[in-house]
Amino acid sequence: MYGSGEIKKYSFKNDYSEGAHPHILLSLAARSTETNCPYGMDKHSEAAADMIRERCKAPNAEVAFIAGGTATNALAISLFLRNPYEAAICAVTGHINVHETGAIENTGHKVINVPSDGDGKITPELIQPVLDWHNCEHMVVPKLVYVSQSTELGTIYTKAELTALSEYCRKNGLYLYLDGARLGSALMAKENDLTLEDIAALTDAFYIGGTKNGLLFGEALVMLNEEMRENYRYMIKQKGYMLAKGYVVGTMFEAAFKDGLFFGMALHENEAAEKIADAIRSTGFEFYAKPQTNQIFVILPDALADELVDEFGCNIESRLANGKSAARIVTSWATTDEAVNALSEWFLTKYCAGLLKEMMK
Amino acid sequence: MYGSGEIKKYSFKNDYSEGAHPHILLSLAARSTETNCPYGMDKHSEAAADMIRERCKAPNAEVAFIAGGTATNALAISLFLRNPYEAAICAVTGHINVHETGAIENTGHKVINVPSDGDGKITPELIQPVLDWHNCEHMVVPKLVYVSQSTELGTIYTKAELTALSEYCRKNGLYLYLDGARLGSALMAKENDLTLEDIAALTDAFYIGGTKNGLLFGEALVMLNEEMRENYRYMIKQKGYMLAKGYVVGTMFEAAFKDGLFFGMALHENEAAEKIADAIRSTGFEFYAKPQTNQIFVILPDALADELVDEFGCNIESRLANGKSAARIVTSWATTDEAVNALSEWFLTKYCAGLLKEMMK
Amino acid sequence: MYGSGEIKKYSFKNDYSEGAHPHILLSLAARSTETNCPYGMDKHSEAAADMIRERCKAPNAEVAFIAGGTATNALAISLFLRNPYEAAICAVTGHINVHETGAIENTGHKVINVPSDGDGKITPELIQPVLDWHNCEHMVVPKLVYVSQSTELGTIYTKAELTALSEYCRKNGLYLYLDGARLGSALMAKENDLTLEDIAALTDAFYIGGTKNGLLFGEALVMLNEEMRENYRYMIKQKGYMLAKGYVVGTMFEAAFKDGLFFGMALHENEAAEKIADAIRSTGFEFYAKPQTNQIFVILPDALADELVDEFGCNIESRLANGKSAARIVTSWATTDEAVNALSEWFLTKYCAGLLKEMMK
Amino acid sequence: MYGSGEIKKYSFKNDYSEGAHPHILLSLAARSTETNCPYGMDKHSEAAADMIRERCKAPNAEVAFIAGGTATNALAISLFLRNPYEAAICAVTGHINVHETGAIENTGHKVINVPSDGDGKITPELIQPVLDWHNCEHMVVPKLVYVSQSTELGTIYTKAELTALSEYCRKNGLYLYLDGARLGSALMAKENDLTLEDIAALTDAFYIGGTKNGLLFGEALVMLNEEMRENYRYMIKQKGYMLAKGYVVGTMFEAAFKDGLFFGMALHENEAAEKIADAIRSTGFEFYAKPQTNQIFVILPDALADELVDEFGCNIESRLANGKSAARIVTSWATTDEAVNALSEWFLTKYCAGLLKEMMK
Repeated sequence: MYGSGEIKKYSFKNDYSEGAHPHILLSLAARSTETNCPYGMDKHSEAAADMIRERCKAPNAEVAFIAGGTATNALAISLFLRNPYEAAICAVTGHINVHETGAIENTGHKVINVPSDGDGKITPELIQPVLDWHNCEHMVVPKLVYVSQSTELGTIYTKAELTALSEYCRKNGLYLYLDGARLGSALMAKENDLTLEDIAALTDAFYIGGTKNGLLFGEALVMLNEEMRENYRYMIKQKGYMLAKGYVVGTMFEAAFKDGLFFGMALHENEAAEKIADAIRSTGFEFYAKPQTNQIFVILPDALADELVDEFGCNIESRLANGKSAARIVTSWATTDEAVNALSEWFLTKYCAGLLKEMMK
Repeated sequence: MYGSGEIKKYSFKNDYSEGAHPHILLSLAARSTETNCPYGMDKHSEAAADMIRERCKAPNAEVAFIAGGTATNALAISLFLRNPYEAAICAVTGHINVHETGAIENTGHKVINVPSDGDGKITPELIQPVLDWHNCEHMVVPKLVYVSQSTELGTIYTKAELTALSEYCRKNGLYLYLDGARLGSALMAKENDLTLEDIAALTDAFYIGGTKNGLLFGEALVMLNEEMRENYRYMIKQKGYMLAKGYVVGTMFEAAFKDGLFFGMALHENEAAEKIADAIRSTGFEFYAKPQTNQIFVILPDALADELVDEFGCNIESRLANGKSAARIVTSWATTDEAVNALSEWFLTKYCAGLLKEMMK
Repeated sequence: MYGSGEIKKYSFKNDYSEGAHPHILLSLAARSTETNCPYGMDKHSEAAADMIRERCKAPNAEVAFIAGGTATNALAISLFLRNPYEAAICAVTGHINVHETGAIENTGHKVINVPSDGDGKITPELIQPVLDWHNCEHMVVPKLVYVSQSTELGTIYTKAELTALSEYCRKNGLYLYLDGARLGSALMAKENDLTLEDIAALTDAFYIGGTKNGLLFGEALVMLNEEMRENYRYMIKQKGYMLAKGYVVGTMFEAAFKDGLFFGMALHENEAAEKIADAIRSTGFEFYAKPQTNQIFVILPDALADELVDEFGCNIESRLANGKSAARIVTSWATTDEAVNALSEWFLTKYCAGLLKEMMK
Repeated sequence: MYGSGEIKKYSFKNDYSEGAHPHILLSLAARSTETNCPYGMDKHSEAAADMIRERCKAPNAEVAFIAGGTATNALAISLFLRNPYEAAICAVTGHINVHETGAIENTGHKVINVPSDGDGKITPELIQPVLDWHNCEHMVVPKLVYVSQSTELGTIYTKAELTALSEYCRKNGLYLYLDGARLGSALMAKENDLTLEDIAALTDAFYIGGTKNGLLFGEALVMLNEEMRENYRYMIKQKGYMLAKGYVVGTMFEAAFKDGLFFGMALHENEAAEKIADAIRSTGFEFYAKPQTNQIFVILPDALADELVDEFGCNIESRLANGKSAARIVTSWATTDEAVNALSEWFLTKYCAGLLKEMMK
């Protein structure tokens, strides 16, 4: 279901099925024979880090470039939770809780899950009972809150929401870590009111996802809290995450941030998603979660959902009750107008066909 | 010392300071907007794996593409040592013993080191005392032997040596795992008598290093033993080593193996190293280890060694007694004739100057 | 809350606040200067294991004596889950999920919790969604089901219930492990229809708790499944659980099982608890969970619950809504009639006083 | 070899083959039905800790009672090494390096071994090369030095030696941890010039071994350094080392320290060992290590060593070259005069017989 299967003519399966934007590839080609310091201590990584620090207004932040999202999460959480009896809190739908094959537990730490409020987001109110309950040495010490922006359901935290979480965490001695696998799309969302500067001010660390935003691979972990940074390169190396040719990721992030390409690609994803959401809205189909970023969750009759999967390579997120399913549509940096139009048309056609069938009864 | 420092005009610091061969980059560019299955289940990874299986004459081998060497070692050893009380044996100079920040121990396993025979290689005779000693539940269970080809000192195992090790391991219930970070260079060495087919027949697993052989990054882990393969993709994912865009590595290995480019780049490395070794031989300087592959270890007076580091970005391998040092010279896929000539000339000049000074006394 | 606080005249705080039964101590004194093989390979451990095997009608079972319950759980689960991506399933109230400071996660494994059906027990129906959901390498592999007998709420599985779980586990490739910290009390419960022989036939491993059943310390892990036994003594040693003087635990279990003392002590616990439960029943106070073993959970107004804690050293299990609390009363091998009478009287007095107050209004 | 084998009439196999001194057992019997706070928070543990603090002149030390030596080592080292990339240094003969089944590595940390100077002891000079070598993030961070008093070879560090180590460690940011499995015997050694007060002043933590000094089981970990103490009870619980009836160990240590019984038992061990050493000295047999405590290592012809093992349950420490073996003789709190005389006589007889045979040639 995750990795296998036939490639469709138009694929809305995910945002990591097409390589990298040509400008990104060009940046690599241009430096093909250039000699660089290895292990991420090169000038391109440094330049990329500088641009990120600048946009975050966080001149003292450390930035590390890591190959993938699960690795970045495992690294960041290990840097925060230096004691094995310390635990991370996340939504029951959180990526670290369900989709990373127990990577956090494998580093020795418990992941405590709290119910999300239906849109993949968590709040201080949902976290409080965990703190109340864990009060002695027979239980783990909750020490970090993990959130994703955008969430697993494509929704985004507002500035007010993230601020409330941040204040709560600081008051209660919890680190706040934000998984930004799709941060580009979240930042460029129409309804978004959070800047990189805000996020840097409100969290202890977060990462800017490159893999799902038009790079060959790579995530930029922005470490704001000084405690987590102690000997962080030792941790990167020990976990097998230190790339000899670290400048490869640095070069791609440099290219992505120099002229705003990173944000341009995210915008492209969102605009494509928006057109599809508009098409869906023009029918009577309902959304499973509010469409805000490059992931659209739509509720369809089971058979129609299966058809969508079959024709456009989407995923079934969940089988709901009453013969309906929630299907996930994802746009990428490489999604074409042609594909968007084909999918929009599909929705219209299917909806009308449904209406007609209903009338015929 | 490892990652930092100024870039020299000519750098012989290592074989991972220059990006990727243009043909490799072209292969990525050509597939920029192609849609591929994620997580390494794509047609390019499959094609590359097929070519590797073919060259290994191992039609049933599983091949996984991993971002870097430390990750590949940690993965492979975890796949072999499923019980935490099982241990790996390696030379005291072995990469997993000294240069991976305790990555193996961090997965819970002891690394037992044995003295190497001076050239970085180990033999059944060196391993036997470890087996004799570990005989009850108060000690770990030695279960795997780790070797590198080429070794940390640039030397290579002969077919007779690897066969002896392999037979010994099989007789004693030990897995034999070969770290091939520089396997390309080893295979193309003049004195080499081992083929990929031999290595596949003699080991339980090995990897073909791409990072140090002209790829942007990536290693191909060839899993021959069926026991280690059980649920190996779960282990890759849990460790954070599964790349969403796995086809990126697959595409590069496909390009490297299609027309022999991989071996051509290795040959280039060796030829450059050989010219330098010849130049050194024409002087009176001695080698610290027999020059066989793309790493040359030369013994120089301390001051001269420091000068070499300073001018050509080499590393000091070891400070020896009597005011001498062993310096490491490494060639890469991108090493130019100009650089080779400059370094050769340097040796000649320095040697003559030394002679002159001696005569002047 | 757990370990501290003043000692009350009568304590119903737990079943591990008084040392060992005099007969147990005598058995140790009698062997004070006897020379024994260390590390659990002595004749007393062997004799105790034989008696346990005999009672279980499991002549091939291996029995290991471990110092405490958390250690025994961590050991057993490590023996079953040899791969780090394998996970244990338990009730959300399960001891390994909440009261062992993440000991299982610290060995690298995820603990997946399922809601219990209100009495601390789980069923195949509650487990099925976990199996449905975990279907690929991006998620852990559920591999073991953990239950407690008696449960955290003092209830017991019936033979029908445990048989259903056992059949379900075997059909689905799951190990079934039973935490018997209070197995003595469960076996001697009036409503119990499960014998040691049944439990040995239905589970893959379980332990017979000594600490909470009148021994100085010690649990007997009964390993039925052959897979888990591979090199189990290495695992015991590596975790720091192998006692040099293992014969100390062996001797105590030998003494406890020779003349039925173990079961006599459990019966004593249950009879004391039953008298208290009867006294509560004679009032109008309600139970939070069905009283079946040596743990009684009663619902009281908050103030009264606090008074109970204050006078009889009980614990508050949970603050309920509407101004009420669930309090836990535990009897031990050393609980006296005097204490039981005092507590029973307290309930009667308090209930009458409440009625009177109500009438006075 | 370790745990199995027939029990001999006189056993000098180890110091943990006989239960506990009668006074220790009496202390448990006297408190059989006393109610105590669980988890080590009881008045007996507190009283024992107070006596230890008093003898150490370390009023602020924390003392924790743990069931066994491997557990205590794993706990202490985990408390010092909070980061997985930090490593412990010990003699190649160190208990944590060879006889704990990789317990330290299983907590994620590398154990770096240095050659000992032949008597099981290490010095600053032996440690320095490790610090020189480990200088960047590609290698672990050496952070703790582990020594044993007495050592694995029965020798003891002098005050000058331990002071030199302590000063070296403090100067170099290394913690100094002393494994005192046989600390009683070391403290009572004739040549000893170190007091408990000295050891407390010179180390960051150490433990006082009870298991090998006449207790049923139990070690007292004395934590002097404040850094290691942070949430140490969480670590004890998570590792499965927290005994519900912690007061059992506390009571035994209280009894052992109240009237000097602990030191009396150690003295008894040493005096028995000394008589045996004197007997050996009166022959021409040589020692493998200087006899100072309750372990004697003697060099014998192979056949004679085997006979010693056969008759007195000793162990072969090492097969030496030239047909000789080093055998280990250990005395315990329960060693009788009769046994000592029998063994002494054996040495005399065997030596004379050897002389006679030689003369007859």
